[in-house]
Amino acid sequence: MRRVQFHETDAAGLVHFGAFFRYMEEGEHALWRAAGLSIAPAGSEIGWPRLSASFEYHRPLRFEDEFEIRMQVTAVERSTIAYRCILSRGDESIATGRLTIICVSKRPQEPLKTISIPPDIAARFRTVPEEQKR
Amino acid sequence: MRRVQFHETDAAGLVHFGAFFRYMEEGEHALWRAAGLSIAPAGSEIGWPRLSASFEYHRPLRFEDEFEIRMQVTAVERSTIAYRCILSRGDESIATGRLTIICVSKRPQEPLKTISIPPDIAARFRTVPEEQKR
Amino acid sequence: MRRVQFHETDAAGLVHFGAFFRYMEEGEHALWRAAGLSIAPAGSEIGWPRLSASFEYHRPLRFEDEFEIRMQVTAVERSTIAYRCILSRGDESIATGRLTIICVSKRPQEPLKTISIPPDIAARFRTVPEEQKR
Amino acid sequence: MRRVQFHETDAAGLVHFGAFFRYMEEGEHALWRAAGLSIAPAGSEIGWPRLSASFEYHRPLRFEDEFEIRMQVTAVERSTIAYRCILSRGDESIATGRLTIICVSKRPQEPLKTISIPPDIAARFRTVPEEQKR
Repeated sequence: MRRVQFHETDAAGLVHFGAFFRYMEEGEHALWRAAGLSIAPAGSEIGWPRLSASFEYHRPLRFEDEFEIRMQVTAVERSTIAYRCILSRGDESIATGRLTIICVSKRPQEPLKTISIPPDIAARFRTVPEEQKR
Repeated sequence: MRRVQFHETDAAGLVHFGAFFRYMEEGEHALWRAAGLSIAPAGSEIGWPRLSASFEYHRPLRFEDEFEIRMQVTAVERSTIAYRCILSRGDESIATGRLTIICVSKRPQEPLKTISIPPDIAARFRTVPEEQKR
Repeated sequence: MRRVQFHETDAAGLVHFGAFFRYMEEGEHALWRAAGLSIAPAGSEIGWPRLSASFEYHRPLRFEDEFEIRMQVTAVERSTIAYRCILSRGDESIATGRLTIICVSKRPQEPLKTISIPPDIAARFRTVPEEQKR
Repeated sequence: MRRVQFHETDAAGLVHFGAFFRYMEEGEHALWRAAGLSIAPAGSEIGWPRLSASFEYHRPLRFEDEFEIRMQVTAVERSTIAYRCILSRGDESIATGRLTIICVSKRPQEPLKTISIPPDIAARFRTVPEEQKR
């Protein structure tokens, strides 16, 4: 369970729509940790820039609301990983997000270059296809 | 022109993907001011929650990069406004965003309720259809 | 235990110094909840603007570091509450913060006005004087 | 002039107290640029972690308020630079901040190490002592 913090609200009295992308990323990194990985280990020469990110908002969140972040891998391709993020409170859907990331090599002073996902990383994720919502 | 601030970067050395949604909203509110409006005047009983928001990322931004935020209304419906956001640096496209907002009445201690966009607000925006990129 | 999130880091590879103030506020609101209170219940006509806030930074935090937030009330005056915040990781001190807040009445369209702290709120907090660090 | 953005406000309807530290840092980096420098040039092996930061808050800021950020160097020592930050709107003082930073060498996989400020950097800043408020 995640609780809404005050700095995540805005003057409309609700959680700012941009904060949901931080919630989705928290879910992503928790998913990697659950898979025995860090998405950004110290000194790594591999990075994961975002290709696309989106949210559809169904219900507002307010200060101190508690909600659940469920992050699922929907596809692992040669260089990309796609996720679905489901934010909910009890039976209520709060918002649904999508995120696609791409694997790059990053060396100091060199441009980012797309590479294949290392097999020992790809093998760690179980894919939940789009049809199967749970 | 908008300049990347240090607090918008992350440990990957790039602007955090979530910061782009703040850029898009800055463009939205500048568009409203250019139309002679504030999206959230003090004491207003009308609010504009977000229905959906997305970005496709084409090139990274780094600390102190300067870039342009171009926000356009693509559709005004009975209760919703849809925008396209184009972030660019010179001839380079940085990212393209979409945002759809909905008009609600908000009174203290009452749930949000969808209403028609007041005509004097709807009349202020010129729509740039999807086909016509500039 | 709180874990550093990626969006809290910056291009220096460390947690951004501004994020510590969000940590301190999270500790403050947890302290209120532990006292059976919310600092901002829905519809409340009392608010708690900040008079001053500071941090001294002793050690950096990095992505996925786990640390402890310890928030203590150091003084309750007629209209103000003062806190000390101790961030640590095991035996290591990460940073020490201070925060002073003031009780105001806030009504729609009226300026904020300093008021006495309601006795039933003041009575809920146990003060840990400055000398007594634990 | 800087304008308050919506994502800087919170559910109290005011700018979140933590956002002021981002304002102060924006002023710091503008000061460096005005001195012909970047505080974080690409590939630099010098960094500037923060030793301490504080704000005293005098008046609230609200959405779309415009205000001025005035950042001044108050002292340059062997390894540290101290600043004062004055936020104001016309004749009104909004808040006063302090920031002290320290010069370190940062190499990949090595701990941060305090070093002397390079003379060509130290020479670029004019100090405004504490007594002299403008």
